[in-house]
Amino acid sequence: MTTRPEHRPVRVLQYGMGPIGQACAHVLLDKARAGHVELVGAIDINPALVGQRVGPSDVTITSDVEASLQAARPDVVLHTTGSFLDKVKDQILCCARAGAHVISSTEELTFPYSKYPGISSEIDAVAKACGVVVIGTGVNPGYAMDTLALAATGVSASAQRIEVSRVVDASKRREPLQRKVGAGLTARAFRIRRDKGEFGHIGLRESLEVVATGLGWVLDEMVETLEPVLAVYPVKTDYFSVAPGEVAGILQTAVGSRNGHELIRLTLKMYLGAQDPVDRVRVHGVPPIDMIVKGGIFGDTATVGSLINAIPRVMDAPPGLHTVITLPVPRAFGV
Amino acid sequence: MTTRPEHRPVRVLQYGMGPIGQACAHVLLDKARAGHVELVGAIDINPALVGQRVGPSDVTITSDVEASLQAARPDVVLHTTGSFLDKVKDQILCCARAGAHVISSTEELTFPYSKYPGISSEIDAVAKACGVVVIGTGVNPGYAMDTLALAATGVSASAQRIEVSRVVDASKRREPLQRKVGAGLTARAFRIRRDKGEFGHIGLRESLEVVATGLGWVLDEMVETLEPVLAVYPVKTDYFSVAPGEVAGILQTAVGSRNGHELIRLTLKMYLGAQDPVDRVRVHGVPPIDMIVKGGIFGDTATVGSLINAIPRVMDAPPGLHTVITLPVPRAFGV
Repeated sequence: MTTRPEHRPVRVLQYGMGPIGQACAHVLLDKARAGHVELVGAIDINPALVGQRVGPSDVTITSDVEASLQAARPDVVLHTTGSFLDKVKDQILCCARAGAHVISSTEELTFPYSKYPGISSEIDAVAKACGVVVIGTGVNPGYAMDTLALAATGVSASAQRIEVSRVVDASKRREPLQRKVGAGLTARAFRIRRDKGEFGHIGLRESLEVVATGLGWVLDEMVETLEPVLAVYPVKTDYFSVAPGEVAGILQTAVGSRNGHELIRLTLKMYLGAQDPVDRVRVHGVPPIDMIVKGGIFGDTATVGSLINAIPRVMDAPPGLHTVITLPVPRAFGV
Repeated sequence: MTTRPEHRPVRVLQYGMGPIGQACAHVLLDKARAGHVELVGAIDINPALVGQRVGPSDVTITSDVEASLQAARPDVVLHTTGSFLDKVKDQILCCARAGAHVISSTEELTFPYSKYPGISSEIDAVAKACGVVVIGTGVNPGYAMDTLALAATGVSASAQRIEVSRVVDASKRREPLQRKVGAGLTARAFRIRRDKGEFGHIGLRESLEVVATGLGWVLDEMVETLEPVLAVYPVKTDYFSVAPGEVAGILQTAVGSRNGHELIRLTLKMYLGAQDPVDRVRVHGVPPIDMIVKGGIFGDTATVGSLINAIPRVMDAPPGLHTVITLPVPRAFGV
């Protein structure tokens, strides 16, 4: 097990300099002033970014992954390049083989075992052989609809059924997310593109499996739905104008059952102009729990927090592929 | 490290058969039906209890600790005999030496390092030598005002200050708790007995230290206050009648600061007839978080849940003295 260096900052390399990666890099530079971390490298393949400096630092963005890893010798790589594990697997393995822990925003890595048993085993084996931890996390999946749901059952003498809902006003989020929810399309166009798999939040099924696995609940059925939410009044954001009747966003659900009994229901509403953003976990059991995050958890900054806050817990964990189930209680890292 | 037996129920011994211990034993018997756990012994020194059967089980309450541990060979002891670590230390060590993990409701064990550095080292050393985990937990301290507060910062890109408040309607709780908050006394009698240390919730300082330590925040000042809450209208419970002007309960605070800046404030109101029971965590930072458990977490059953839910996480943890900071995210255990 790589142990946390007590007397020097954690060396962190940022792999992926899209909006989330840029934000991670800047928060890392902020935290570097207190001596907790040091940004030692930044990787992106975008030619428009390569060669640029990261903020006020000496770090220059490079596209040469192996050379960068070798030169920077990071303790930890924050990996933010894509949602789909099969597409980013080699990037993650490359970092692990360079001896770095990998904390990735790849949604499918949050709970990869069902969809990618082979890749999961391979990552676990490489991570163990290289003495590093690999984990997928973020605000959602990774926190709002899974870790928080588990934590809400932490004092349940008995938990029978769980409902998690997240309502996000997409008009306050970054442009890619607004596009991802289908803003401005007709319902018909939405459904056509939905059926091709072009829309929807990635990771709801992963959150469902995190909750079920964390609780030791064996599900015999998992059903997902994805429908458009239509605007009832005009909505205008910095990026989109949506007329009444056009798609404002998505209503997505994932429901897990056993023997015909619904045990876990996750409901995600993410649309432009959502009136009452909130995160809510209801545990039907003894005692009953109704936990609410007023106003909801603001996703863009929270994803950055989730990735960075995993750093010390990852460094103290035994090597291998982890999930949020196996790490200690999440908490803020650094000031 | 003692590893969790995969193919047999966890053997649990209940040490302390007061109200919480009795409730633990009965929830254990419930969960035993699903095969997760087995109640293998029960210990209490109360002569009125010794020799009695526990619920519909074959377990008989005994006062002979060592014989009981030897006969029952528990994997885990749930220990619920007292609040003060110096008074129960030998009980805990005795269980650890018998090779059992110890999950204790002893409030001072939730974070024992500052008040009892010597006892903490001794427990840690014995636990490691015997290959077992020892931990103190419960609903409060152990969850509502510390673990949950840490979890609320889980996606903070930056956390500057934390406020935790818990409002409990003591009229709905068990009799010892109503007595512990001074119900029915005059304010003068309350203050005299308070100054002798007879009143107040045990563990608020421990919760403060859990939050600070979990966040890596070094405090240079910790201040606690304890004042009576006076009834404004008559309150009658099954155990007490309180007239207006008499003590209905307590208002207790613990505040941690550094360089004169308040960083963490815990506020506990526990009184008969409290109108709006709630648990609330506010994280001042980026993103801001305002987390609320509506109606509050009902303490009597939640303490039982907290102790029992720690079982699988304790069995998977490396040996030694732990706190809620080092264990994985809490979640319900069994059905």
